[in-house]
Amino acid sequence: MKAKEMMDKEFVFVSKDDSIVDVSIKMEESRRFTAPVLDSSMKLVGWITSFNITEGLREGKKTISEVMSPVEDIMSISEDEPARNVVISASKNKLISIPIINEDNQVIGVSRSVDIVDSMSSLYDVKVSKIYKAMEKELRGVSWEELMEASAKISTRTTGVKISPEQYEKNIEKATFGEAIWATGGLEKFFAGLISVGEIVIARKVGRARR
Amino acid sequence: MKAKEMMDKEFVFVSKDDSIVDVSIKMEESRRFTAPVLDSSMKLVGWITSFNITEGLREGKKTISEVMSPVEDIMSISEDEPARNVVISASKNKLISIPIINEDNQVIGVSRSVDIVDSMSSLYDVKVSKIYKAMEKELRGVSWEELMEASAKISTRTTGVKISPEQYEKNIEKATFGEAIWATGGLEKFFAGLISVGEIVIARKVGRARR
Repeated sequence: MKAKEMMDKEFVFVSKDDSIVDVSIKMEESRRFTAPVLDSSMKLVGWITSFNITEGLREGKKTISEVMSPVEDIMSISEDEPARNVVISASKNKLISIPIINEDNQVIGVSRSVDIVDSMSSLYDVKVSKIYKAMEKELRGVSWEELMEASAKISTRTTGVKISPEQYEKNIEKATFGEAIWATGGLEKFFAGLISVGEIVIARKVGRARR
Repeated sequence: MKAKEMMDKEFVFVSKDDSIVDVSIKMEESRRFTAPVLDSSMKLVGWITSFNITEGLREGKKTISEVMSPVEDIMSISEDEPARNVVISASKNKLISIPIINEDNQVIGVSRSVDIVDSMSSLYDVKVSKIYKAMEKELRGVSWEELMEASAKISTRTTGVKISPEQYEKNIEKATFGEAIWATGGLEKFFAGLISVGEIVIARKVGRARR
């Protein structure tokens, strides 16, 4: 995933000669706490937040150029960088939005923390059954029934609650990856469980072949 | 993980009789775009954002009670709810902050989208080697060498690039879960790979036992 796939394309931008009052209304209406200040060729010249606006209103300042942060202070990310870099920058610097620029240095979007939460939570929201179906496809020679049987066995072993393959299949129909991680007690346990599923599947195959 | 483990405990709060000017300065200094409005017993009575403040300043209003959102409109989350619920609410409603309340309905923290990004990115930032070490502990009877050997084999098979167990061990020393998912081409492929590791580990054990 690239930075440009995790950004707000309908971002609001302002110009340095705009009046602070007009910008305050624009930001309220669009519900944006921050906005890039761009020149006529869409290049970044500054950055404003609601804090600059409240201070400007209080002190009777007139235009955006009087209150904006200068361009040197603004962190931006190139559109083709991995989305991961946006997450790291936002997290490290506690930023609620980061401008995304193209190779001509024009701002093409703004990646907001809400966009990041959205993308990351959709990772969590992947249905476990979808992951299993993809796994069945990847694992040549392992049937769906074998996967369910092995998983039910592992689940019974780790949780101490007996579950049938049919019940397991029903559970993962609804459960998401996020829920599964919480239910198994963390990433490591979830992964160890998956490896155990692999172990059981092959052990049974070997067992059958010997019989 | 519970909601209370993913919140800002040093949250800024205001009272409905505070002046809008004072609150604007408080929010600028603490760099908070939103704040809960609490009564003297720390119970929620309203909510303000920078948008309420800029509008209030522009229109010459005096106190917070004139501009705040009423308590009925505010979504809150109980401290013991799963952190997941905070993520879902923030994501669905595009909220940058959600108050966290205790059983007496007092606000004990505010979960901000930056806190959520932080928690979620720390999930991504788990070192793959740490996951493997935990797996080794979980998987009784599987040695570290066996895990590395099987993983190197699977990695060679999926990426087409030959890698030795030693090189694999070196790679996962630095790589994070997030990077691994991107490198393998997604969650499903990563999981299928883990199951295959389990298959190989047991197949080799069986092979050795037969010899």
